[in-house]
Amino acid sequence: MDIDGPRHSGYNRFMSRTVGVLGGMGPDATVDFMSKVIASTPADRDQDHVRMLVDNNPGVPDRQAALTAGGEDPGPVLIAMARGLEAAGADFLVMPCNTAHAWAAEIRAAVRIPLLSIIDVAVAACDGYERIGLLSTAGCLESRVYQDGLSAAGKLPVLSTAGELADVQSLVFRVKGGDQGADVCKRMAVHANALVARGAEVVLAACTEIPLVLHASQVNAPVIKSTDVLAAATVARCTA
Amino acid sequence: MDIDGPRHSGYNRFMSRTVGVLGGMGPDATVDFMSKVIASTPADRDQDHVRMLVDNNPGVPDRQAALTAGGEDPGPVLIAMARGLEAAGADFLVMPCNTAHAWAAEIRAAVRIPLLSIIDVAVAACDGYERIGLLSTAGCLESRVYQDGLSAAGKLPVLSTAGELADVQSLVFRVKGGDQGADVCKRMAVHANALVARGAEVVLAACTEIPLVLHASQVNAPVIKSTDVLAAATVARCTA
Repeated sequence: MDIDGPRHSGYNRFMSRTVGVLGGMGPDATVDFMSKVIASTPADRDQDHVRMLVDNNPGVPDRQAALTAGGEDPGPVLIAMARGLEAAGADFLVMPCNTAHAWAAEIRAAVRIPLLSIIDVAVAACDGYERIGLLSTAGCLESRVYQDGLSAAGKLPVLSTAGELADVQSLVFRVKGGDQGADVCKRMAVHANALVARGAEVVLAACTEIPLVLHASQVNAPVIKSTDVLAAATVARCTA
Repeated sequence: MDIDGPRHSGYNRFMSRTVGVLGGMGPDATVDFMSKVIASTPADRDQDHVRMLVDNNPGVPDRQAALTAGGEDPGPVLIAMARGLEAAGADFLVMPCNTAHAWAAEIRAAVRIPLLSIIDVAVAACDGYERIGLLSTAGCLESRVYQDGLSAAGKLPVLSTAGELADVQSLVFRVKGGDQGADVCKRMAVHANALVARGAEVVLAACTEIPLVLHASQVNAPVIKSTDVLAAATVARCTA
């Protein structure tokens, strides 16, 4: 019988680097990130793709609770995961969770391999815009990772009101609970458009659950999805 | 500000076991498997989910080529991956690739943790049926993993013709190349229905790329998707 497919194979022939993924924050966001990495890799067959070592660990203590309500510190678990991925052979790390980047410095201090920051690449993707609508969670804003990054790049964050933020937060928790229904999507778009109404030229989906329910077609400005930007940067680094 | 979500957190409080996933065969099939694990876990928040350690390694030498055309042996790479996942803390292994189960014995011999076989759980899911339509690839059929499993369970496999099999194979390679379009889906359904026309009471999607493009609504018999069955068995084992 003829095999109508490639006969040759190569072990990481085209990929020079393996990415280690600190995942599970939440699980759907990690899967979304992996899908985006796969979709943005130029590939005709399995062997052309990026090798990803993934620790999809939903047991990382809640980042929001740690940053806003004195909850358990996720730092030690994140450090253990980073060291595990380094030991397993990862050449660099990524973390498809914006809020967890509040612990980026601790992670970097614990391993020898670099952490490719979702904050850095998302801020870089805002090039060409000045007023950036920051659609994110209370914990992420509390940590100021994005405000500081945008400031350093000479950009102005446009933030949600406290009331809007509480609702964004509740929507993110609904996504984590498995709800990506029309109501969640519609309400998320309302909060994105509120940032546009207050002067944002672009909306930055700065929480990896948000792209799962924020549809660009419902937003009155361009949308930059932090997950997509990190996926593209990951592929670029693996294939460089 | 009120946080409208859970404040408590627990490190793998509900999950007694961590699954190690030998992945990347292909990458989309692994992501599909992970999505199914997440969707079939009863969870309200990140911390309720299953911990998955995933080696998404698309560089595993081509299984089809090894089984049907004397291509490079993927065994050593699969063994290295299994040992890596064991060292990283996996309590048991799964492999969301049916054909790779031709190397199940080698993998089992190389590690101390068990491999939960997709073949075993898929055959068990055929309980209640006698004539099983085996929609799979040439390599998988060549290895006889399913024919032997079904025989041992007192069931009769209904197979594709050589011509159909060549086309199924080409469709699977199109899926691995990123094509999940309507034409691929329609042709895959035609091959499923050919098995039904030859007496199959149920169609077993016995390749993890097939569920990505085989829609049960287009098939004239019940469809059992090996990926879904493995995901459910994985969640059951992690939460047991």
